[in-house]
Amino acid sequence: MKAEIIAAGSELLTPDRVDTNSLFLTAELNKLGIEVTRKAIVGDNRGDIRDAFAQALARADVVIATGGLGPTEDDLTREAVAELLGRKLESNPAVLRTIQERFRSIGRQMADVNARQAMVPEGAQVLENLRGTAPGLWLESEGRIIILLPGPPKEMEALFSRQVAERLATRAGGTRLVERDLRVAGMTESDLDQLIAPIYTKYPDVHTTILAAPGEIQVQPRIWAADVRAAEKLLDEMVERFTIALGDNLFTVKGESLEEVVADALIQNHATISTAESCTGGLVAERLTRIPGSSSYFLGGVVSYSNELKSAWADVPPELIQSRGAVSAEVAIALAEGIRLRTCSTLGMGITGIAGPGGGTSEKPVGLVHIALAGGGAPRERGLRFPGDRERVRWQASQVALDMVRRHFLYVPGKRPGTKG
Amino acid sequence: MKAEIIAAGSELLTPDRVDTNSLFLTAELNKLGIEVTRKAIVGDNRGDIRDAFAQALARADVVIATGGLGPTEDDLTREAVAELLGRKLESNPAVLRTIQERFRSIGRQMADVNARQAMVPEGAQVLENLRGTAPGLWLESEGRIIILLPGPPKEMEALFSRQVAERLATRAGGTRLVERDLRVAGMTESDLDQLIAPIYTKYPDVHTTILAAPGEIQVQPRIWAADVRAAEKLLDEMVERFTIALGDNLFTVKGESLEEVVADALIQNHATISTAESCTGGLVAERLTRIPGSSSYFLGGVVSYSNELKSAWADVPPELIQSRGAVSAEVAIALAEGIRLRTCSTLGMGITGIAGPGGGTSEKPVGLVHIALAGGGAPRERGLRFPGDRERVRWQASQVALDMVRRHFLYVPGKRPGTKG
Repeated sequence: MKAEIIAAGSELLTPDRVDTNSLFLTAELNKLGIEVTRKAIVGDNRGDIRDAFAQALARADVVIATGGLGPTEDDLTREAVAELLGRKLESNPAVLRTIQERFRSIGRQMADVNARQAMVPEGAQVLENLRGTAPGLWLESEGRIIILLPGPPKEMEALFSRQVAERLATRAGGTRLVERDLRVAGMTESDLDQLIAPIYTKYPDVHTTILAAPGEIQVQPRIWAADVRAAEKLLDEMVERFTIALGDNLFTVKGESLEEVVADALIQNHATISTAESCTGGLVAERLTRIPGSSSYFLGGVVSYSNELKSAWADVPPELIQSRGAVSAEVAIALAEGIRLRTCSTLGMGITGIAGPGGGTSEKPVGLVHIALAGGGAPRERGLRFPGDRERVRWQASQVALDMVRRHFLYVPGKRPGTKG
Repeated sequence: MKAEIIAAGSELLTPDRVDTNSLFLTAELNKLGIEVTRKAIVGDNRGDIRDAFAQALARADVVIATGGLGPTEDDLTREAVAELLGRKLESNPAVLRTIQERFRSIGRQMADVNARQAMVPEGAQVLENLRGTAPGLWLESEGRIIILLPGPPKEMEALFSRQVAERLATRAGGTRLVERDLRVAGMTESDLDQLIAPIYTKYPDVHTTILAAPGEIQVQPRIWAADVRAAEKLLDEMVERFTIALGDNLFTVKGESLEEVVADALIQNHATISTAESCTGGLVAERLTRIPGSSSYFLGGVVSYSNELKSAWADVPPELIQSRGAVSAEVAIALAEGIRLRTCSTLGMGITGIAGPGGGTSEKPVGLVHIALAGGGAPRERGLRFPGDRERVRWQASQVALDMVRRHFLYVPGKRPGTKG
């Protein structure tokens, strides 16, 4: 079964907004064995919306549209679809009552414009929206399914999960998308490809995507299969070969983020961590605390931007800063050791560098970052020069920092990271 | 002049990747007075790519495609366009030499597959790619312009800026998009709309978009105009009215981020700031240090997750934590005052709360955050309960925190924020 997604909304044709609803929908449709073959983004223009539906219906079994169901005159999806299918739009008394009730419950009168949201094309089934006033609609025409969903992500997602997924599942065929999500840190895309190309080329039925992001590469083998069990077995075999080839660089086979894997390693090993950051400005602490329950392993961190605070908060000797410079391997190590002792944590992380765009010299250029990890033996330190702008330098430094914590647990006795479950 | 954008690549039809090249292209095309009227996203399928071009060419003056110009068999844009236009694909010796040269310069032999990238449809002009091996192509057919660009953003952007923008400018008409970007913090979308609807409805030629994001609303009036000066005047008049209506809630009329406005206010007023964060985990420090040159106003911050570190790093009396609880107005104020005194900064920010999903009680529910600002008079404190998940609670808390800093400078003698330039 093939689906196309239409996103309606003039704001999606500006330089500021991109359609992200289709990511959720694609994931959900794939789970049901429905492949997304095309996406279209159209403005708030009745003719354009109608044409987009006409073209999509000529190709796909299911057409799902988001947006254009609001109460204003810019919201034209209902009208465009009714016109295309030659169906009348009628005010649905039950929907109207629901909308009025919704307004009443928050102590407000329904505005007249909201009555438009009760207009339903003949023969359409109404999908109740528990989070907003615009109901969804399900239509069928000439063997094709048309699903209209509201644009706000929370409303769209809730509506799809509660009222569309199951209904679609009964209509979808037996094929399913089976996939794996492996993630790798600490190597380049070309080095990775050299290692794994001999593996994935042996599986011509599996489509393996390699996606490179700063400081991380995702390897995603995917296969559409009627026999899900056989496909799972095939992918497990592939993943096993990838795992051997990638070794310690592979940090998850289950699509986890690096901070999730690190959090899990810390928890599994009953370890705690603290951070002393300079150029990353708190990004490592922020990433470590994104995870629910992070208070069990994260004790605290300092962002010691000034030299004085490097000494005051992490006991970096002022002489060391003076002799080696604030951006140096020695100061990174002193930050890591200092914060570890101050907070009595198992591990201490120290980061100092030049994120740019200013502050670089020929000896210590923009992008140079020293990252140190103290605890459990001699401190480890890495000095790297990252390419890109300030944001990219900071992000890559935080990736290496988290990856150093992960790798630490590969080499000490205890539970290895990325092996949960 | 109207343009459509086609993004080719099967990875753009997965749940993980969204086309972002079109945002850059839309901004650049708008500057040239070219409106983007539709976007299509298609997989690596020759028939689909061909059909997408056929449909776009039936509607638009310019069709720009990104992706599908690589060396592998998945890269089919060249073939699809040549087929659609009925033109032969020929190997271009100059392009081939350039690619071979590129490989030689990095000490490698060109792989045979890369020869595909030298295939050029009859009559196409080659647009040299200085950052990669895939050249861009410019074709014209029946009065329409077709531009094929590589998919990697850095290559696409450099190629467009250097070789497409000027060429398109000479073909585009005299109309330009004129726009403003106002941003507001501290009010709801409906309250905002109530204040400004009486203004924007008086300007029917201007399309005003209101975009709500967590803790921030953008108001963007846009107009396509042949007489740019008259349009600028009209928008300036509108912005003046919006400014009066929105008062202190308006933080920029130039599309700046909240951290940029705050950074500017700190710099203009020769003020410094330090932070003591709990539930936001360093997010406020991280946002304050995103701005180049932040070391001139940001002295440092602590992420004091544990009660002990709240006392050790920001001198919060343990009795206060015991009597009022770690999440309380009193502790937020003590964090703010403590960190300010410790670092000798002009302002101190203290944040404590429950980001969730765990840790809430009926008295202190998930989402409750206390935010305090000390310095220049009595400390200000706000206790708020934010909706949404952990990430959303943390983000909204950081928005309110930054906004409190901004508002501080509205009420003290000195330079007002958001009034630079």
